[in-house]
Amino acid sequence: MPRIAYVNGVYERTSEAAVSIEDRGYQFADAIYEVWSVFDGRLADMDGHLNRMERSLRELAIEMPMPRSSLLVVLNEVVRRNRIREGMVYLQIGRGVAPRDHLFPVDTRASVVITARPVDRDAAARKAAQGIRAMSAPDIRWGRCDIKTVGLLPNVLAKQAAKARGAGEVIFVDSEGLVTEGGSTNVYIVKEGVIRTRSLTANILAGVTRLNLLPLIAENGIELREESFTLDDAKAASEVFVTAATSLVMPITAIDDHEIGDGKPGPIACALREIYIDRARASAGV
Amino acid sequence: MPRIAYVNGVYERTSEAAVSIEDRGYQFADAIYEVWSVFDGRLADMDGHLNRMERSLRELAIEMPMPRSSLLVVLNEVVRRNRIREGMVYLQIGRGVAPRDHLFPVDTRASVVITARPVDRDAAARKAAQGIRAMSAPDIRWGRCDIKTVGLLPNVLAKQAAKARGAGEVIFVDSEGLVTEGGSTNVYIVKEGVIRTRSLTANILAGVTRLNLLPLIAENGIELREESFTLDDAKAASEVFVTAATSLVMPITAIDDHEIGDGKPGPIACALREIYIDRARASAGV
Repeated sequence: MPRIAYVNGVYERTSEAAVSIEDRGYQFADAIYEVWSVFDGRLADMDGHLNRMERSLRELAIEMPMPRSSLLVVLNEVVRRNRIREGMVYLQIGRGVAPRDHLFPVDTRASVVITARPVDRDAAARKAAQGIRAMSAPDIRWGRCDIKTVGLLPNVLAKQAAKARGAGEVIFVDSEGLVTEGGSTNVYIVKEGVIRTRSLTANILAGVTRLNLLPLIAENGIELREESFTLDDAKAASEVFVTAATSLVMPITAIDDHEIGDGKPGPIACALREIYIDRARASAGV
Repeated sequence: MPRIAYVNGVYERTSEAAVSIEDRGYQFADAIYEVWSVFDGRLADMDGHLNRMERSLRELAIEMPMPRSSLLVVLNEVVRRNRIREGMVYLQIGRGVAPRDHLFPVDTRASVVITARPVDRDAAARKAAQGIRAMSAPDIRWGRCDIKTVGLLPNVLAKQAAKARGAGEVIFVDSEGLVTEGGSTNVYIVKEGVIRTRSLTANILAGVTRLNLLPLIAENGIELREESFTLDDAKAASEVFVTAATSLVMPITAIDDHEIGDGKPGPIACALREIYIDRARASAGV
């Protein structure tokens, strides 16, 4: 079955779907995006992603291309047309099409592109049961990583470098030696039963998975501290894990050449993964 | 006359020219670009731009999409089909089209898009005779500004903020108070007859206009120092100017609310603008 995309009002084959060469997303990375997990054909954490999307648009002074209620209809329609039961939805909104000039164009309509793809949850579960290795790298990204823009080249290069070293994720470290976030994830460490993850006051993205995981951690009686930690803290932790809408909760078994704990996924990370997926599946589509 | 673009082997109307929604330039800013000035229908500083383009591609591990000689033919054909006498050519090369994944796709062909537009040299000369105001802003861009990528959102936002304050360019200042570069230009100051511009060892782009201007400065007996300077140094300078392939040599008459010198374009900047344009025009197409 061909994949179907929504592009500025039209549903068409993803393989044929196109945007103008003068779309500012293409020429300036002047666009934001969101990724939803889909469980049982329903989008998970809908409000969390829409809230963050609206904030990203506000920060860039891009107008909402349609009311939130309409966007919700289109997102679900893309899921339906692609017959996604378990999968992901990708939404990109940009400032629109205009002759190339750094300055914001006047009277330009925002561009909207939505795609979807299935995810093999069994394969994902097997991967999580193994955990993944991580590579540390200096965080050289710009100073507004709180906005979810498509300016992802630094992440692309770092994740590719990680892959070349046999790692499935990169862990960014700032100039003070503190872990900021992963290449496409938030990072957590566990030590003496206490979970630590960097506070959102720093230059990181407010992960929606992070947003929804934190209350679950509290509900399950685990102590959480939103505070920065160093790369050495992470290496010395009993567990390290990362979260994102795509990987959900993913255990990290090694950083660089250093094994975390016994080199296997930790019990807290594994438990939180199950708890998170149960909650996301139960609340999807709400 | 409709504008004509070259897109992956096809010449078509710019208004109808499109790239896939899964082009990595669109989804990841995984692409580089170059801009040439055109004088008398001929591209200026051809080699300087092609050399820098090849370096940018190497740094991102993107394959050259065609031999340099073929690219030269296409660039000139875009100029010809658009009947550009005085103008600009824009080239963008990206990693190509692939289902969205941060990691480099395998066996994907690089995307090539080329557009052109005319420039009104008389209007540009009048603007240069007036000079432009600049606004200073913290440099929050990533750590690889030496690569000319399309990840330009930080520049877009800063230049838009400058416009809102009545300025035509932004001057970026790093965390140590040193000027790095402009929003789309290199920056120079003149004090006691000596020109200073930041060295390329710092996190700035190797401007092709800068590359070709430096020998002209020497030939005209003006002392040049490639060294960093502070924003205060710039405000206290007798002249400030910026360079780029689009604006060539452009005098800065004020930074924030502080007038530079007597608030008029300086004699050295005005002379260098004439010298630069004469050289570029004479050597274009070579």
